[in-house]
Parts: sequence; C-alpha cells; structure tokens
Amino acid sequence: MKITLDNMEDFARGAAFLGTGGGGDPYIGRMLAQNAIKEFGAPEVITADELADDAVVLTAAMLGSPPVLLEKACCGDDIDLAIRKLEEKLGRKADAILPIEIGGVNSTLPIMAAARLGLPVVDADGMGRAFPELQMVTFNVYGCSATPLVVTDEHLNSVLIEADSGQRAEGLVRAAAIQMGLSVMISSFPLNGRQVKDYAVHGTLSLALGIGIAIREGRTAGNPVEELVAYLKTTPYYNQAKILFDGKVTDLRRETTKGFAIGHCLMDALDGSGRQMEIIFQNEHLVARENGITKAIVPDLICMVDRETAEPIPVEHLRYGQRIKIIGTSAAPIMRTPEALQVFGPRIFGLNEDFIPIEQL
Amino acid sequence: MKITLDNMEDFARGAAFLGTGGGGDPYIGRMLAQNAIKEFGAPEVITADELADDAVVLTAAMLGSPPVLLEKACCGDDIDLAIRKLEEKLGRKADAILPIEIGGVNSTLPIMAAARLGLPVVDADGMGRAFPELQMVTFNVYGCSATPLVVTDEHLNSVLIEADSGQRAEGLVRAAAIQMGLSVMISSFPLNGRQVKDYAVHGTLSLALGIGIAIREGRTAGNPVEELVAYLKTTPYYNQAKILFDGKVTDLRRETTKGFAIGHCLMDALDGSGRQMEIIFQNEHLVARENGITKAIVPDLICMVDRETAEPIPVEHLRYGQRIKIIGTSAAPIMRTPEALQVFGPRIFGLNEDFIPIEQL
Repeated sequence: MKITLDNMEDFARGAAFLGTGGGGDPYIGRMLAQNAIKEFGAPEVITADELADDAVVLTAAMLGSPPVLLEKACCGDDIDLAIRKLEEKLGRKADAILPIEIGGVNSTLPIMAAARLGLPVVDADGMGRAFPELQMVTFNVYGCSATPLVVTDEHLNSVLIEADSGQRAEGLVRAAAIQMGLSVMISSFPLNGRQVKDYAVHGTLSLALGIGIAIREGRTAGNPVEELVAYLKTTPYYNQAKILFDGKVTDLRRETTKGFAIGHCLMDALDGSGRQMEIIFQNEHLVARENGITKAIVPDLICMVDRETAEPIPVEHLRYGQRIKIIGTSAAPIMRTPEALQVFGPRIFGLNEDFIPIEQL
Repeated sequence: MKITLDNMEDFARGAAFLGTGGGGDPYIGRMLAQNAIKEFGAPEVITADELADDAVVLTAAMLGSPPVLLEKACCGDDIDLAIRKLEEKLGRKADAILPIEIGGVNSTLPIMAAARLGLPVVDADGMGRAFPELQMVTFNVYGCSATPLVVTDEHLNSVLIEADSGQRAEGLVRAAAIQMGLSVMISSFPLNGRQVKDYAVHGTLSLALGIGIAIREGRTAGNPVEELVAYLKTTPYYNQAKILFDGKVTDLRRETTKGFAIGHCLMDALDGSGRQMEIIFQNEHLVARENGITKAIVPDLICMVDRETAEPIPVEHLRYGQRIKIIGTSAAPIMRTPEALQVFGPRIFGLNEDFIPIEQL
C-alpha cells in the first residue's frame, strides 16, 4: 500500500468514516499530511509483520477536542518535538511511527510525522476506529504502558509523563491539554515491534483507503452509501455493517466540557414513520437508540454520513436539519473481548447497559 | 547555623510565621524533617556564598493546597524521585538543595530532602516568605527559568515540564497537582550557584530559627508577641514589624478551589472600639484592611498569631471565635522592586490597589 498525494483524499475520507464522529475534520488532516508529503516526500507504509521484534515504534497523535482543532491545528515542529523528547527519554531512536487510532485526523497526522522524520508508518493502529481517551486502546488492554509519553503545544512547551496506569496518564494528559489549549500533540505508548504485531489492529490504513475509494466510486455510480456498506461487508472487521437509520437532525446539543466534545443528536426518520433515533457522543458516537431501543453501542462503530454523498460527518459539523444516514458496523474482534470491554465497553462511558454485538441487535 | 532535632521546633514555628497563613501546618513539616534527620542525620546548612558559581542547586517543595497536606503528606520517595528525575534531565547531580520558600512546610521539606540525599541545604530561599504560585519567586523576577521541573506524587507518578514562561509552567503544574490529589512534590527552578548568590533572599533559614527562638523565649518571659516583634525589628528584612490588630474571628470563608485555599477572615477588635479587620487570602494572606483601610499588602508579610502564645496560625487552623493578633512586616528589599511587583504585587492577585510599603501605611 502507498499513501500519496493522489489518494490522500480517499484515505482521509475513509479515516473520517472510521472516526465515528470524532477524530477531527478530515480536511484539516488531509492538508497537514499533503503539505508534509510535498515538503518531505511520502513515507513508506509497512505492515506490522515487517517490524523487527525489538523495533522502537512510537505513536503520533493529536489529543483534545476535535472542534478546537479547526482553529488550532498543529505546526509540525510540535509533533516532531513530542517524538524527539520521547526518543530522548527512551535513549533510543524510533524505527517507525504507528497511528494510535485510525479515525479522523489521527490517521493523517502519523503520516505527516513519518514524512517529516523520514520514518516508515505502520499499516495498523490501536483500535480500528477512534476513541476519546488515551487509555482506550488495545495496547493498554493487553498490558503495554501508555507512558513514558510526551505532550507538546505550538509554543513548544512540553510535558513528559510517567504514570502507573493508563487511566492516571489520561487524567494528567487531559489536564495538560486543557492548559495548552485543548489541541495538543502527543507521542505515547512506546512499543516494540513484537507488541505491535500481537496487539495492534492490523491493516487499518489500507482499510481506510478502501472505504474512501468505495465512497468515491459509489458517487460515480450514484449509490455511495450502498457501495460503502457493500465494501464494509468484505472487510475483516467491519463486515456486520448495516444502515441503522435514514433521517434528519431535529435536536443537537454539543458542549466542549471536561476536555471533550460531549452531547447528543436527535433525528426523525425521513419515511414519515415517526421513528426517532438518538445518538450520544463523547468526541465519538457511543450509542444509537431508536425509540429507546439500542441499535449499536461501543466499541462497535456508529458512523454518520450525508445521505446523498456518503460524506462522513464529524460531530463538529453536525447541523440542525441535516439529512443523514447512520451506518453501524462491527469492531475488530480484539476490540470485543471481555478484557477490552473493561477498558472501552459501554459502562466505562457511563452508559447503563452491557455491550451487545451489532449483529445481535 | 545548624538544624538539629533540638531546634527543629523553634525553626518550624518561625517558618510557620513566615508562611503568612499559608505553607502548611508546621507540625507536619517538623515531623517530616525530624524523621528524616533521625534516619539519615542532619544535613549541613551552608550559606549561599559558600556555593561554587557553577554548582547545581535544586529546589524541593510541596505544592498544592495546604489544608490537603494535613491528610496527604509526602512519603519521602516522592521528593527523592522529583530531584532524581530533574538530575536525570539536566544530566548533572545536585550539589545542594535550596528552599524555594521559607514559609511553612517548604522550609522543612528541603531539610528532609537534603538529609535523605546526603546534600547540604542552602540558608536562603526565593522570597523570604510563602507565596501560592510557582512563578512568584525572585528567581523568576530576575530571569531564571522555572523549568525543567518535575512534579511527583505518592504513587511515584511523575510529570516533567518544560515551558516558555513561569506563568505557563504554573498552569501546567497546577493542573497536574489537581490530578495528583493537590498535595504533590516538586523540584523546580534548577539554578547555578551564581544565580542563588545574586537573586536568593539570603539567610532566611537562620531568620526562621531566630523567630522561633524569640517566640519561645517570649513565652518564658510572659510576652511572646512583644518579644517576637522586637526580634523582627532587629532583622535585615522584617524590621518594619508592627502589631496591626488584636481581635477575634467573627467570620470565615475558606474554599479549596482552583487548586488553592481561597477565602477571607473577618475580626472584631477586642478593645470594644468596634474596629473590624478583614484579611483576604489565597493560601497566603494578601491584604489586611481595617474598616476598609489597607494596613498591609503583598508582598509585605501579614501574619496571624495566637494573641496569648504567639503561635502562628495557618489558614487551615483558623476557627470562629479565635483570639488573634495580626503582625505586619516589611518584605526583603529584593521583593519590593518594580520588577518584583510585576510578578507578585497586589494587582497580580486581583487586588485593585498598588503596593504601598507597610512603613508608609
């Protein structure tokens, strides 16, 4: 697989779909990666299996509230600094850059970082989607430490954190991010190649690209949402895809609070049936309920797309009256284990229900 | 000068006086230092002038809300860790430990740290009193960087911060401290010997001891408050000392908010004159007003002592009905310069008036 200037739009659009409402505006993410590729060349994309077991793999991500990223993007030096400071702490240079999440801007930011630093980027991530909190990744589920980690801002202030749990690290990172303006760069979860092979969700850069291509080709064919769902059904993780709802936004509450974009969105069905769907989000969509009945719930993916163009809609672009189709899909199997649900199952987000796979709902 | 088990009580009591209401319970501070001296021996106390110009001098302090320290003191390993992590970052070992402030627990904590690490402690500090925020020290006024600095907690989580200003460092430290339970250890303002000689407030450990001795001897003589004021008048910094008020507490509001102990205290005069005094505090006392007229204001010192025993009263021990004498004193000249007032003058604390020296009030 190659990420180039030519397929960046497809890739960023697919990643925005996997962002499940969070992860930031794909336009911003695309611009950041495109500029880096123009200046430094496209980074090599390697599979996890190509990593040496003792390779040093560092993640590169934006952390904060996606709506803030619209106003305060990254400058490049900040993400370089986060990685360099983490290398300095580890006493070893990075061999590759890994996306911590494939959803949204955090799919393109590692490409930007890898291009700037002349490193390969790994075709894998820590969730196969996006999640709002630092500890919500497979690596944490399976015992890899989130720290040491480094947070930086555009003034090149930096914070190096060493904590005894992913949850504690999240608390410290979030507090620093709020002080730094709620859109910061972070390099966390320093991993070795073996850990990436064992615990990453593999091939997700390729899948994001595939999703973006399916949407584009569907537009040409005049049925982008159907093409998208058909493509998802062919994938190893997202094969339980279905259209959950076809409606328009009738109520929207969205606050930037506690360091997140938190709220809910209500939709009325367009078929005149009177059915209603409610989506609750914390950066990402957490649960979709039709007339109070759960239709999909984390860690399965709940994605909003424009009903005509299948354009993924991040939470910050939701508007009253928008016409939207809701697509639900299964998450990767490694994301649905009992241990994984202890870290990012429904109850972790304060939802008073257990996870039920979308194929059973 | 020597700090020993024998004079620790005098020393801690004098330091509590210089804490101007903040800086934490001297009993806790005394216990911490006494235990360290019993286990590791008393540290050597050296003057700033004994430092080599290129000596590495690190500060050791507790940061947070003094009332929280009553419930969550430090364990020793946490302050060791803060200093060791800062040494690691600097790539040099510390040659001496310096109190960042002489007021309260932060006078005894450096003694504890120095004892544990086998280092001398410098007879000086960064203010000759206590202040609530990180950047409120002479070193910051005169251009020494607060960072790199390290914050640690009792679980041995650590945060290393590098920031472009003392104010920014304070924001990041405070956010981390709140996450870590609002009573944390910090080693900040890494200095060289020349900087300590040029910008520290010299001899303040000796002065704290002198204050404690004056109170104890005054108790024997039956007039501790008068003895205390008489001693202060002989000192290089606190020589404008006077008794501002003699009253009892009639109103008290004290909140732990934004990472500080913030509030005010009202007192009625005991002489039946109907005069009232109001003290406003943010950890430390900021201004003393009698019937609305300012009698002393930061950075000059406003200290509360028991009217019979001259025992210094930290904010967290204030109680309705307490009988108190308020003593005001001048701050060290280096604390009263125009540059210094830009960093910890009245307006920095949100008070709508300029600094006027206590001798002119």
